Amino acid sequence: MKALEEKILKEGVIAPGHILKVGSFFNQQMDVPFMMEMGKEMARLFADEKVDKVLTIEASGIAFGIAAAYHLGAKLVFAKKKKSANINNDVYTASVYSYTYKQENTIMVDKEFLIPGERILIVDDFLANGEALSGLIDLVKNAGAEVVGCCTGIEKGFQGGGDRLRAKGVRVESLAIIEEMTDDTVIFRH
Amino acid sequence: MKALEEKILKEGVIAPGHILKVGSFFNQQMDVPFMMEMGKEMARLFADEKVDKVLTIEASGIAFGIAAAYHLGAKLVFAKKKKSANINNDVYTASVYSYTYKQENTIMVDKEFLIPGERILIVDDFLANGEALSGLIDLVKNAGAEVVGCCTGIEKGFQGGGDRLRAKGVRVESLAIIEEMTDDTVIFRH
Repeated sequence: MKALEEKILKEGVIAPGHILKVGSFFNQQMDVPFMMEMGKEMARLFADEKVDKVLTIEASGIAFGIAAAYHLGAKLVFAKKKKSANINNDVYTASVYSYTYKQENTIMVDKEFLIPGERILIVDDFLANGEALSGLIDLVKNAGAEVVGCCTGIEKGFQGGGDRLRAKGVRVESLAIIEEMTDDTVIFRH
Repeated sequence: MKALEEKILKEGVIAPGHILKVGSFFNQQMDVPFMMEMGKEMARLFADEKVDKVLTIEASGIAFGIAAAYHLGAKLVFAKKKKSANINNDVYTASVYSYTYKQENTIMVDKEFLIPGERILIVDDFLANGEALSGLIDLVKNAGAEVVGCCTGIEKGFQGGGDRLRAKGVRVESLAIIEEMTDDTVIFRH
């Protein structure tokens, strides 16, 4: 998505250690009309897949999930990262290592919200090592539902998670794939 | 918002202990077109307030934030509940007790995303004891920005948090206010 690549180059900041900061429009602060445009593009990519539901994971994935589900005319379900007092025990779970928080998380979704046979599009903000997507795929499989594919906003191609999933036969689309980062710029895969 | 009251009565479930479960459309699973309608109503209520930004808190607040900000033409910022590796130290913080998770959380927002003088609408999914809204109000005040009001989806009026904030002079609007719950129904405040 050319508009996303341009926005990353214009508004993203490369912090020491080659960490890309896009929090001013993509994450902690969101350019909402642009978020809806990204969701529209996600919906276009999977328009032929008869998506029943979009599945994402809290927290910022929810924004992308809303935007994609809105344009697909699908419901949105989000996986939670830990047990709250209000969730019942009838949940599907999977284990996900979070590099951001440096801890193992159990992710879960209420069994009533993933139905056998449903066609599920998995959506998230970032794709790096692919841990979150793998956990979400596990949840869908545990439910006897079908993953039609995964769609993320920004993929860090150099971390390999997306390509490992593709090698397993999962359709993975990302609106922008970063091939390489230097101290002062970002090079995209095309 | 009459459509929300009707949806609560039709699709909500009252669990033992008078816990209202609306996860099938309002929370873990979201009826996205209806979510956008709720955001539209939030925007209508605060249309005259010249809102610069909508502020919410992760996780499910983000969906309401997107919907309200979209219809207001405002940016969305969400507060995080704990420190991640990617957030810098230049943050505003506030303390919030979560009754859901039964723990004290520090919430935070990057200083660059709340600017002195900005007019901020605070949005969240539920309002019960008002702890989350109070914390978000603290963040905005710490930033030298202005709270134009708070808007939530479902307020549990019988828990008093909304009325305590109103008594302090904060404009608080909720799309549905539950005055009382019995074993088998919900009574709304009008």
